[in-house]
Amino acid sequence: MSYLMSVGVNNNTLMTVTWNDEPVYVKMIDQTKLPETLEYIICKNHYEICDAIRNLSIRGAPAIGVAGAMGLALCAHNHVSDNKNDLLSDLSSAYKSLVETRPTAVNLKWGLDKILEVSYRYETVSEIKENVIKTVKKMTHDDIETNKNMGKFGSDLINTGDVIMTHCNAGALATVSYGTALGVIRSAKESGKKISVFATETRPVMQGSRLTAFELVHDEIDVSLIPDTAVGYLMNNKMVDKVIVGADRILKTGHVFNKIGTYQIALLANSHGIPFYVAAPLSTFDLKNSIDTVVIEERSIDEVVQIAGKRIAPKGVRIFNPAFDLTPPNLITGIITEKGVLNPPFEKSISGMFGMGDVSS
Amino acid sequence: MSYLMSVGVNNNTLMTVTWNDEPVYVKMIDQTKLPETLEYIICKNHYEICDAIRNLSIRGAPAIGVAGAMGLALCAHNHVSDNKNDLLSDLSSAYKSLVETRPTAVNLKWGLDKILEVSYRYETVSEIKENVIKTVKKMTHDDIETNKNMGKFGSDLINTGDVIMTHCNAGALATVSYGTALGVIRSAKESGKKISVFATETRPVMQGSRLTAFELVHDEIDVSLIPDTAVGYLMNNKMVDKVIVGADRILKTGHVFNKIGTYQIALLANSHGIPFYVAAPLSTFDLKNSIDTVVIEERSIDEVVQIAGKRIAPKGVRIFNPAFDLTPPNLITGIITEKGVLNPPFEKSISGMFGMGDVSS
Repeated sequence: MSYLMSVGVNNNTLMTVTWNDEPVYVKMIDQTKLPETLEYIICKNHYEICDAIRNLSIRGAPAIGVAGAMGLALCAHNHVSDNKNDLLSDLSSAYKSLVETRPTAVNLKWGLDKILEVSYRYETVSEIKENVIKTVKKMTHDDIETNKNMGKFGSDLINTGDVIMTHCNAGALATVSYGTALGVIRSAKESGKKISVFATETRPVMQGSRLTAFELVHDEIDVSLIPDTAVGYLMNNKMVDKVIVGADRILKTGHVFNKIGTYQIALLANSHGIPFYVAAPLSTFDLKNSIDTVVIEERSIDEVVQIAGKRIAPKGVRIFNPAFDLTPPNLITGIITEKGVLNPPFEKSISGMFGMGDVSS
Repeated sequence: MSYLMSVGVNNNTLMTVTWNDEPVYVKMIDQTKLPETLEYIICKNHYEICDAIRNLSIRGAPAIGVAGAMGLALCAHNHVSDNKNDLLSDLSSAYKSLVETRPTAVNLKWGLDKILEVSYRYETVSEIKENVIKTVKKMTHDDIETNKNMGKFGSDLINTGDVIMTHCNAGALATVSYGTALGVIRSAKESGKKISVFATETRPVMQGSRLTAFELVHDEIDVSLIPDTAVGYLMNNKMVDKVIVGADRILKTGHVFNKIGTYQIALLANSHGIPFYVAAPLSTFDLKNSIDTVVIEERSIDEVVQIAGKRIAPKGVRIFNPAFDLTPPNLITGIITEKGVLNPPFEKSISGMFGMGDVSS
């Protein structure tokens, strides 16, 4: 895997999702088994990719963007006829199944669109197969490079001695490798800064306990786990210098959709005068939708009523389990991307970054 | 149990802790078994009461106040000699063991002090035994009456149609019966108001899922459970009209110590213009200490790293698990007591309630 070595990923680095050539399959860490065991899943077709995304074996906006693209690439690879229209029809139906697995993260649609676009660009079935596979490999490579660049820009915002709070998992396990918010933390540490991290548990799916704590312990970064109820306590006791989280979708207005709980952490940080940063690649930006047209996914009540198969809530209780929330731009100090840090007013800095001209003036 | 009937408790009402005369024992609901099974523990001496308090079989500030007092009463009852000084020495040592089980809730000390005071008031061992038992029975009776009165005062603050958020368990299971915050909700419902409740899970010990949801479903009060991460989302989406919580200790300045997570809910409520009420009996007020002299209990890391015996956090991760936090008076709309509702400025209304004169002027 020389393309990984080239961006500085060593053998000990967690690789969340990889494409294998001979035989063809997609290999991913089964995140539902963490932190107990580090197990891998092999997916040989897009149906298995759909299942893996739906049951959260793989999650994290950038990771499911690449995994979704790999699902389409598997669909192309597995196609048996030489008829281009048949292949495009297969890809179109696989696209629909894949895009519906997680409605809120925009990177999934981004990854799928990219593969569909490539497949329309070539004439023959074999050319399409060759080029979609080439594209998913490049996406894997680019994801890591993007995260490393984001890390460098974000690291400049971190001082030695900083205590950083993060929510959910915006780490290696949410991307192909290295991570977005945790990529910034990794980069700060690599640059010699002494930092420590408070990770929230992140109920109900516990991505903080199971994933963030796991990968920071794995990389020997100083991490303490706290219940989601202790965020205000820590901030009020001056135990947090900065907050950095990832994002599932960022609108052109700077509104950020991210894991449930992000909004209240941003508001608490704002009330305590603590800088609140979002780290996300440009593929997370959705320049078309507005806050009213984005679907907030509601997930299974089982995530709340049971843990490890044991029932923790009484029968007959209703559950409300929104998976994401919306943080308004006025609570965000900066958005760290692979091209630099966006500062408020975000409507202006985002349109500048995407070369749209100044829509705010 | 005519003393229970007299305050309107029916057969279906959950009784968290009761004193039994023949044979003498204390019976309590084992709250660690909820919501799966409603099981009872029998305690025959104060050591068993200490264990029950320490492992959270019984919890909730008013409940452990009464349970602690019953522990001293068991110690008195079990005393074999006729020597009063020996009995007082036994009680003093039992007092020390009991008071150390939970350092933050002030009601425990209140209950223990009350029994010690009674035991010093009588001359003979048999008089002491008789009167401490009479006192714990009266405390049981008074606790329910207190909660009913608190409920009536609090109910006046509730409008029909209100959606009320509560945190942790300030219910029947946190008191002898009926509850403080949930007593207000019960009373509002009994008065014919249509209300519904959002209960937070309350990580790490899940008192919301296991206890509040259990007792509200038991009483057929409309309840939905939410992860602690969804508080801000609900408030920002105008899904909450009022917040009511209990308290473990209230200072004369109106500072409230309560379950971890209370402070951030109060701050979020304040930011969204949602009234935030605390319901607590006068036994919860600590007029002597200041915010700097109250110990915030840190509890076992096991509460965070495992659920139902299954490990949910990786080995090697550090845990920070404060059990309580401090909500300042400026975030509190009113404090509901059995003698009426205290309004800001609390320093003035609290000193008025306790007949201390106006210390703020």
